[in-house]
Amino acid sequence: MKLWQKDNTETSAIIEAFTVGRDTEFDLLLAPYDVQGSIAHVTMLGEVGLMTREEAVQAVDALKEIAAEIGAGTFRIEEGVEDVHSQVELLLTRRIGDIGKKIHSGRSRNDQVAVDIKLFLRAQLRTLRDEVEGLFSLLQKQSERYRAVLLPGYTHLQLAMPSSFGMWLGAYAESLVDDLTLLAAAYEVTNKNPLGSGAGYGSSLPLNRTRTTELLHFGALHYNSVYAQMSRGKTEKFVATGMAAIASTLARFSMDCCLYLNQNFSFISFPPGLTTGSSIMPHKKNPDVFELIRGKCNRLQGLPNELTLLLTNLPSGYHRELQLTKEILFPAFGELTDCLRLCRLMLEQLQVRPDILREDLYKYVFSVEAVNELVNQGIPFREAYRQVGNDIEQGVFEWDAARPLHHVHEGSIGNLATGQIRAAFEKVAARFDA
Amino acid sequence: MKLWQKDNTETSAIIEAFTVGRDTEFDLLLAPYDVQGSIAHVTMLGEVGLMTREEAVQAVDALKEIAAEIGAGTFRIEEGVEDVHSQVELLLTRRIGDIGKKIHSGRSRNDQVAVDIKLFLRAQLRTLRDEVEGLFSLLQKQSERYRAVLLPGYTHLQLAMPSSFGMWLGAYAESLVDDLTLLAAAYEVTNKNPLGSGAGYGSSLPLNRTRTTELLHFGALHYNSVYAQMSRGKTEKFVATGMAAIASTLARFSMDCCLYLNQNFSFISFPPGLTTGSSIMPHKKNPDVFELIRGKCNRLQGLPNELTLLLTNLPSGYHRELQLTKEILFPAFGELTDCLRLCRLMLEQLQVRPDILREDLYKYVFSVEAVNELVNQGIPFREAYRQVGNDIEQGVFEWDAARPLHHVHEGSIGNLATGQIRAAFEKVAARFDA
Amino acid sequence: MKLWQKDNTETSAIIEAFTVGRDTEFDLLLAPYDVQGSIAHVTMLGEVGLMTREEAVQAVDALKEIAAEIGAGTFRIEEGVEDVHSQVELLLTRRIGDIGKKIHSGRSRNDQVAVDIKLFLRAQLRTLRDEVEGLFSLLQKQSERYRAVLLPGYTHLQLAMPSSFGMWLGAYAESLVDDLTLLAAAYEVTNKNPLGSGAGYGSSLPLNRTRTTELLHFGALHYNSVYAQMSRGKTEKFVATGMAAIASTLARFSMDCCLYLNQNFSFISFPPGLTTGSSIMPHKKNPDVFELIRGKCNRLQGLPNELTLLLTNLPSGYHRELQLTKEILFPAFGELTDCLRLCRLMLEQLQVRPDILREDLYKYVFSVEAVNELVNQGIPFREAYRQVGNDIEQGVFEWDAARPLHHVHEGSIGNLATGQIRAAFEKVAARFDA
Amino acid sequence: MKLWQKDNTETSAIIEAFTVGRDTEFDLLLAPYDVQGSIAHVTMLGEVGLMTREEAVQAVDALKEIAAEIGAGTFRIEEGVEDVHSQVELLLTRRIGDIGKKIHSGRSRNDQVAVDIKLFLRAQLRTLRDEVEGLFSLLQKQSERYRAVLLPGYTHLQLAMPSSFGMWLGAYAESLVDDLTLLAAAYEVTNKNPLGSGAGYGSSLPLNRTRTTELLHFGALHYNSVYAQMSRGKTEKFVATGMAAIASTLARFSMDCCLYLNQNFSFISFPPGLTTGSSIMPHKKNPDVFELIRGKCNRLQGLPNELTLLLTNLPSGYHRELQLTKEILFPAFGELTDCLRLCRLMLEQLQVRPDILREDLYKYVFSVEAVNELVNQGIPFREAYRQVGNDIEQGVFEWDAARPLHHVHEGSIGNLATGQIRAAFEKVAARFDA
Repeated sequence: MKLWQKDNTETSAIIEAFTVGRDTEFDLLLAPYDVQGSIAHVTMLGEVGLMTREEAVQAVDALKEIAAEIGAGTFRIEEGVEDVHSQVELLLTRRIGDIGKKIHSGRSRNDQVAVDIKLFLRAQLRTLRDEVEGLFSLLQKQSERYRAVLLPGYTHLQLAMPSSFGMWLGAYAESLVDDLTLLAAAYEVTNKNPLGSGAGYGSSLPLNRTRTTELLHFGALHYNSVYAQMSRGKTEKFVATGMAAIASTLARFSMDCCLYLNQNFSFISFPPGLTTGSSIMPHKKNPDVFELIRGKCNRLQGLPNELTLLLTNLPSGYHRELQLTKEILFPAFGELTDCLRLCRLMLEQLQVRPDILREDLYKYVFSVEAVNELVNQGIPFREAYRQVGNDIEQGVFEWDAARPLHHVHEGSIGNLATGQIRAAFEKVAARFDA
Repeated sequence: MKLWQKDNTETSAIIEAFTVGRDTEFDLLLAPYDVQGSIAHVTMLGEVGLMTREEAVQAVDALKEIAAEIGAGTFRIEEGVEDVHSQVELLLTRRIGDIGKKIHSGRSRNDQVAVDIKLFLRAQLRTLRDEVEGLFSLLQKQSERYRAVLLPGYTHLQLAMPSSFGMWLGAYAESLVDDLTLLAAAYEVTNKNPLGSGAGYGSSLPLNRTRTTELLHFGALHYNSVYAQMSRGKTEKFVATGMAAIASTLARFSMDCCLYLNQNFSFISFPPGLTTGSSIMPHKKNPDVFELIRGKCNRLQGLPNELTLLLTNLPSGYHRELQLTKEILFPAFGELTDCLRLCRLMLEQLQVRPDILREDLYKYVFSVEAVNELVNQGIPFREAYRQVGNDIEQGVFEWDAARPLHHVHEGSIGNLATGQIRAAFEKVAARFDA
Repeated sequence: MKLWQKDNTETSAIIEAFTVGRDTEFDLLLAPYDVQGSIAHVTMLGEVGLMTREEAVQAVDALKEIAAEIGAGTFRIEEGVEDVHSQVELLLTRRIGDIGKKIHSGRSRNDQVAVDIKLFLRAQLRTLRDEVEGLFSLLQKQSERYRAVLLPGYTHLQLAMPSSFGMWLGAYAESLVDDLTLLAAAYEVTNKNPLGSGAGYGSSLPLNRTRTTELLHFGALHYNSVYAQMSRGKTEKFVATGMAAIASTLARFSMDCCLYLNQNFSFISFPPGLTTGSSIMPHKKNPDVFELIRGKCNRLQGLPNELTLLLTNLPSGYHRELQLTKEILFPAFGELTDCLRLCRLMLEQLQVRPDILREDLYKYVFSVEAVNELVNQGIPFREAYRQVGNDIEQGVFEWDAARPLHHVHEGSIGNLATGQIRAAFEKVAARFDA
Repeated sequence: MKLWQKDNTETSAIIEAFTVGRDTEFDLLLAPYDVQGSIAHVTMLGEVGLMTREEAVQAVDALKEIAAEIGAGTFRIEEGVEDVHSQVELLLTRRIGDIGKKIHSGRSRNDQVAVDIKLFLRAQLRTLRDEVEGLFSLLQKQSERYRAVLLPGYTHLQLAMPSSFGMWLGAYAESLVDDLTLLAAAYEVTNKNPLGSGAGYGSSLPLNRTRTTELLHFGALHYNSVYAQMSRGKTEKFVATGMAAIASTLARFSMDCCLYLNQNFSFISFPPGLTTGSSIMPHKKNPDVFELIRGKCNRLQGLPNELTLLLTNLPSGYHRELQLTKEILFPAFGELTDCLRLCRLMLEQLQVRPDILREDLYKYVFSVEAVNELVNQGIPFREAYRQVGNDIEQGVFEWDAARPLHHVHEGSIGNLATGQIRAAFEKVAARFDA
């Protein structure tokens, strides 16, 4: 069969399949937001006189019924209906006839889709904030729990100084604070209203965009209509950037866990069922979950670049490939949420090996302790360093690994600053409620 | 010569050249911040008793003299001195002898470099904010100046609706507001103090990290010492992400300019000297500057990915390749600043073609105007649409392109919201003063 | 519900869902290759004495029956069966009992999956070669058809010199030759046998890997067992790299088409049904298909980077996230094939505008023609250039745009080198039959 | 100072500085190839009658003198001369007057630069092939040297089976074979002649492009002039792709080395001077060189993406930002060469720890050995597996780690296939001599 000898019907079917793509799959996610946007738009139309008050009330009531159907899970995109927006319109017209068509005054498909995506992303970002908070809290809890259990600290992957499980776990908690800061910036940009910008050039209808901004609880408007359209793709990229930051923290933590579970380290362990093994390899505890978190999160770090490639060098104005941002970005929320949850599942059951630093292998990680102890006793650093160096060289360096360490400054083994870090987290987390 | 038969001296020279890399080049940029960090550290050491008050005063005075040399441009890294930190130490010891060496109590090279980079990046980000503001203001000025000059608006790169130079230029101004929002998040993360975290595991010395945070005007601490070390690379990536956002706006604007300067469009022009041409191709006005801005900015958009590749799957703890973030990120500030400035240079002399929409080619961009006019007169949208469609089909559609348009809603041709967008910009810009 | 208070059963279910991921979806694609690999392995086991000849014959016969089921589309992964490999093993054991389990001597799941993927990718690459050839041939056909229809050639997006539709279309055909060269290199690496490398460290069993290489028609072995395992992920990245090259050509061609369909250019057109429009915007011909090809292909160009991020800094040896290459790469074959086919569908119906260069706008693209004509008459280039420049300056430059051009050198308007480019394509295409 | 109030002279200086960029720096690298291309072009011009034979001979002689100057290192780009091409032209005109200007018949700056870059890249690729060969040979040599020294093999970073230093080092040698295969594809595309394609649209002059192809020893032509121009950027991307493959192998090997040098593994070591340490941390051997190779090579893996970003969505025809490929790609040759050489420097002095597998920690890596030994004695795999599992469970599993292993199949511990891999390497390496 030669593709190019297809008749018109076949050709249209092929083209339709190609252009619709995976839209129906992702459009269902947008349904509640599509109705929400329409309710705001209609309310405003009634206020500015582009619909009568009665028409507006009727339309809003009908839209609320549709919202209820969506909430109840009975909403479907019917055979032959192109997308979620058409389906909502169809249901509306069935209920209230021609009034249903009036709701499109002063709105184009472009700003309708843009506002749907904004509302969807806003909700997803809030959910993500909650998931991040869950992991953050658990990291802090485990950090406090194991605050006194020492661990060697490495630089250049070489043994360097004493650290602790408290320090290690607390570091990843604090990492999430900064990640959330980036995500909050994405939230701020997401939380702006493109509705009323039409196809990207506004219109001569006397819309009240400030009013829909208020009705939809947006933080601000994308004022300029040309920019409102430009914000498509860009908003998605900002969101992806924030998600990549979180993913980066998860991936790195997973790498540490894979390493620490390795038998040459054996710093941590997990109960059977959380790792996979082998009956003839009794020491084997494959960290499949962490390997997959690492892989999925490293892949997620490629998302911003993927979106950049999609957008690069497109002149201003809408282009059809903006539709593809849905299939690029939307599945990532589920992926990242899964990773956050599985990370918690594992972390809750983390088992740490006590007394690691009492092994001879780790003896010299205490050499800096010895130097600083002398410094604290008033001996100049250089002299202290020389003295400890001498002891080591002559093989007489001794340190009782059982002695408690006295690290007191902010963020050291004995002062994890858990409360301050919690406060910092909460300050950033609150930005998602704006 | 077989590489592996080199003698030890040659081998060390090769290895030193490889490991030092381009550090001396970029270290000079860090010099003022290295001294600034040392002054804060020493002041704190004096306060907590790790130096005497007198020693601290002496060291601070000497450091201020070195700062003056750096400011005067007479500071050099001497032959045989490894890096900027060693050079500062050398100058210090020449001035105050052994006291100079005491300043390293409770500090490792790791947190010293980390704080230098933080201070450098913070200053760069503020400068960048100013440069962005310069372009923003000019875009707004030109947007207001050409607010009444119409331009066709495209969707799918197809003629769609009337737009204006005011809308087009104003859109890019507003774009910078959101870009700056992301950069401000990077600033917030940059503006945290790693000093006192040592090699990433803290120490037993009774440092007061809150005090150095205050002295260096940091917004907060990177509390956890393990995380303070992890923030290296990550801070740079966040900064690159914010810069990429600005670059993206510049690249897209440049693409528009290249297109609008193309003879098939001929929407804009520039005086001779800003474009290159050819004596036998009199119409040729090559937009080299915009092509290069586009290219440089598209390249800058690859920076976050480059840094991600550098960091991916490194276990926690310092690794030597973190040194490479300097040569990856530092040159980008100059590149982006150049692009921002050249963009202003061009934009200031922008010439726009009046009366574009009076050409027959653009006739139908007014069809939606005609429809909305009828809607504004009370005719239902559907009926208005049918009527205009009929006129067009029968070839009797007419629209006087000279008639002024009445677009009044927020962000439309007649209501650019310049003031509101300015206010939004200033709100975000103020975050860099925190 | 607290995630971490789940009982063991729930926990295992969550972990299993997470670790299995989308494997069952992609595993079905591997089924025929899994059987093919097993047939070769069993045949070899029979020959080296690790199975008896009779057992081997029995197992091969049963595997062929399973292959037939797969071919007939009746093969399913049953409820409770983990993956395709287990399903094949189950069917085998149902047929031939314990002999079915013997086929795993000298094979681990790792090299089994690796060989399945290699065979799958090899088949996909051949199919892709065919699809590329389809587009290549059509580009050449259309290039020849419109060889005499002139088009302006641009540099810097500024009018420069005469070109032709023949040149333009022929350029993209030749572009595919180089793209296929890269894909052929990926094919060469794909076409190497990892079977027998076990879990990446070989074994003490006397396998004959050269024999399975022959039986599976591989071009060579991945000899070193450690490297055979390392080739996972790397092979996929090479394949993605070749696909990205093809995608790059399609994306660029689509950008040209979107531009040329824009009304300011109006160089090309398509019959109704291949573009979308608007009843009140009669000039609108939205090139949705090309916009989506452009977007999908730009996204595909991000694939190699995505795979790089997945693999970066993983120490040698198998890691579980290698499983994710399936969900990253496999869907790309369908995406790219769709784009190649839709590109052909559009291109077959391409309509070109004749006589473009007769418009006054394009007058000066002939100035270089005039210069070179004088040069061909023996006048030195500098003098010819001066003369034409003078004519233009004084407004007396004339060129009859209807005159045929005499470009004769290889690859010029009058000498498209279609045959030579075809020969080059065929030479590269043949590498996929190795 | 307001940037936009600069006078014309200042403005031009700023614009010139911006547009010239780093060209003079990289142009010097192109000088020999610029002359080489000119010699071929002139020779052809003489043959087709666009210059007289005498003029051609004179010009070729003068160009050879300039080539000699370049070879001798006395060539400079003079103050006020824009680029290398102008400098060569200037020197030529000083020598032979007006004839020097004739050499530009039938050539534009575009194809001149394109051919220079092609010739430069071709030479760089050959050099790179040699450097890769150096590392390949050393990896094989060390692989053979340590073929009998066992190492644990890991899967999931968990102890799995016996491996050896021979296997480990040999794997990276074989990895380079596949990397070179990709680089050879880039070479094949690089080795095509764009000369004569002018500004991308050919010309009416009767050039003989086949002849210059022959004179410059190119493997083939980029026939279509439009495509010849399109090959700019694309060629660079292909080359970057091949280089990224090599970088990926080096980075992974470096990661292994950093891990194996870590004290928890302690598999390898290096003499003092190749690692850095600390006098109070006697066990510290920081692998700075490998960390930097890893970092530099991971960064190099971002190059193809950077070039993709530069090129994405540019319509066909030359654009000025193509100039930037020089500053993106050219420095990478030095970077990669440095990494290859430093890798050799380290590898040559690699010290491996014998008898690793005799430690109790690694006992169970022999369990599969035990199973396969029984299988080789005729016991069915399942029974053998049960038996060994039983022994392990009852704590009676024993294996004499000093016993030699009998792995005999291709690519196993006892059969490294060094010769076959060498042959494969040479076959691919020879493609660079085409």
